[in-house]
Amino acid sequence: MTEKVAIVGAGLVGSGWAIVFARAGYQVSVFDPSPEVSERVNDWISWELTEHRELGLVDNADQVIDRISIAASLEEALKGAVYVQESVFETIPVKSEVAKAIDALLKPGMIVGSSSSGIPASKFTETCKNRRQFLVAHPVNPPHLIPVVELVPAPWTDPALLAECRVLMEKIGQVPVTVNREIDGFILNRLQGALLNEAWALYSEGYASVQDIDATVSHGLGLRWSFMGPFETIDLNAPGGITDYARRLSPLYHEIALSRSQPELWSQEAIGKAEQERRQVLSADALADRRSWRDDKLAKLSMFKRENLLT
Amino acid sequence: MTEKVAIVGAGLVGSGWAIVFARAGYQVSVFDPSPEVSERVNDWISWELTEHRELGLVDNADQVIDRISIAASLEEALKGAVYVQESVFETIPVKSEVAKAIDALLKPGMIVGSSSSGIPASKFTETCKNRRQFLVAHPVNPPHLIPVVELVPAPWTDPALLAECRVLMEKIGQVPVTVNREIDGFILNRLQGALLNEAWALYSEGYASVQDIDATVSHGLGLRWSFMGPFETIDLNAPGGITDYARRLSPLYHEIALSRSQPELWSQEAIGKAEQERRQVLSADALADRRSWRDDKLAKLSMFKRENLLT
Repeated sequence: MTEKVAIVGAGLVGSGWAIVFARAGYQVSVFDPSPEVSERVNDWISWELTEHRELGLVDNADQVIDRISIAASLEEALKGAVYVQESVFETIPVKSEVAKAIDALLKPGMIVGSSSSGIPASKFTETCKNRRQFLVAHPVNPPHLIPVVELVPAPWTDPALLAECRVLMEKIGQVPVTVNREIDGFILNRLQGALLNEAWALYSEGYASVQDIDATVSHGLGLRWSFMGPFETIDLNAPGGITDYARRLSPLYHEIALSRSQPELWSQEAIGKAEQERRQVLSADALADRRSWRDDKLAKLSMFKRENLLT
Repeated sequence: MTEKVAIVGAGLVGSGWAIVFARAGYQVSVFDPSPEVSERVNDWISWELTEHRELGLVDNADQVIDRISIAASLEEALKGAVYVQESVFETIPVKSEVAKAIDALLKPGMIVGSSSSGIPASKFTETCKNRRQFLVAHPVNPPHLIPVVELVPAPWTDPALLAECRVLMEKIGQVPVTVNREIDGFILNRLQGALLNEAWALYSEGYASVQDIDATVSHGLGLRWSFMGPFETIDLNAPGGITDYARRLSPLYHEIALSRSQPELWSQEAIGKAEQERRQVLSADALADRRSWRDDKLAKLSMFKRENLLT
């Protein structure tokens, strides 16, 4: 029998999750409190899957679409589901209210993963009677094109359900990362933030332009990082592996760390200048098109990685 | 008439540079003080170019090889060259000695770019009589597969020659980044270092395994960064562009920055543990094969980017 999952909140993230589960063979029931959002979901998913069929990313788009249905109520969506992916608006009050409503309908063994990108589950599930069944399952947007998912348990999350959630994510073709305990920004945004903070500092201090800083990543660092993580990269970058690399290069990296004795914050002045630089290469009314361009490139990169055994 | 460049120092970096210039149509004269290194160069380049022909990266491998010759002396290598790429061993005494020898042979207008990844040109060119003609041109290894080159002038580098060097790098298909003044680690290694320092801190504190931290990059952050830099990424990640993104998310990133009030240094204990984790997935005697695997994937990714207009 086909297993069922519920998607609660059907914006771009929730809709992406619907594709992820449906293409893996799950029945997907989508609920969004706003009727307009619910109405848009099917169209968006059909359009997105047509694109994917053209790229060769799915070969049974119609079947995938058939597995997705819109539920009239939260109760209908959750009925018989083994897993709930919640992707509602990211504020503590909204997340708390939805967690409470889901909590009231939970059966034993059901897992609730929240797409929260920054708020830990402990901030919105504390008073739930089934709080052991909640955790964060944070994807990167769009989840059907970028496979990583951070699993972040609250202190009260059942470790067995966390482990089960990891298995489920692997089964549907995502790449789960277990964050052993809660921390601001989890792993992914902390790594992104560390790089961004340094990028803003270098830009503010006039070392290079926005475009040149971008190029050091898009034509340099990012190439290796698109199929190897930072640790594997340095493990391969010294004859004797990671310890050898650390011996040779940690003095430089320590010097860099020590040179920033004050945390560098993003200044309004730098943001204003960067905005001007970006608008010269991409006007504000071209942002939406460039986002479609990005998603098209991500889809093609995803195919490329699959064909080259880099997934 | 075909222009000529000189490559001084023919290890992996120098040999990669020889390919970069030769495939762009330049006559390349390679000099290495060690006769064994000189002897190996031709074989290595032939082998590398055969691989590239198979991948479709070059279609005239024999012509490219024909453009590369081994010089018997530094003088022979530099004779008539418009540009010198120096890639000798990276210590101040070695770089200083080679800079001095090159200096004695320089004609007006010739530019000398050093592949130095960390030592700024001011540390090894101060006493050169033609020091205005020297700068750092730091590639990422291997330069024929990763196009970024950081151009870092010393305080005395002639700005006109810096600009000319940038044009030359664009002409040969590299992606130059201008670092306006010297700073430890330049741009690329500072960005890499910021991310690595946070990765080590998270690992040391037990938040996630080496493999999971790697996965957040190789299956998450790194996908976008392989064709967009960090600024373009955030510019596209909020409806109103980069200023809108900063308004929404800088508080989170500031919190992350402030949470590391002490610079996090790489601890010996963490390095030892990470080494163990890495050796479980990749044994020490498999490192060399994995490096070939990486270069093969980089070559394929380079083709993919070219075909998808992402270069």
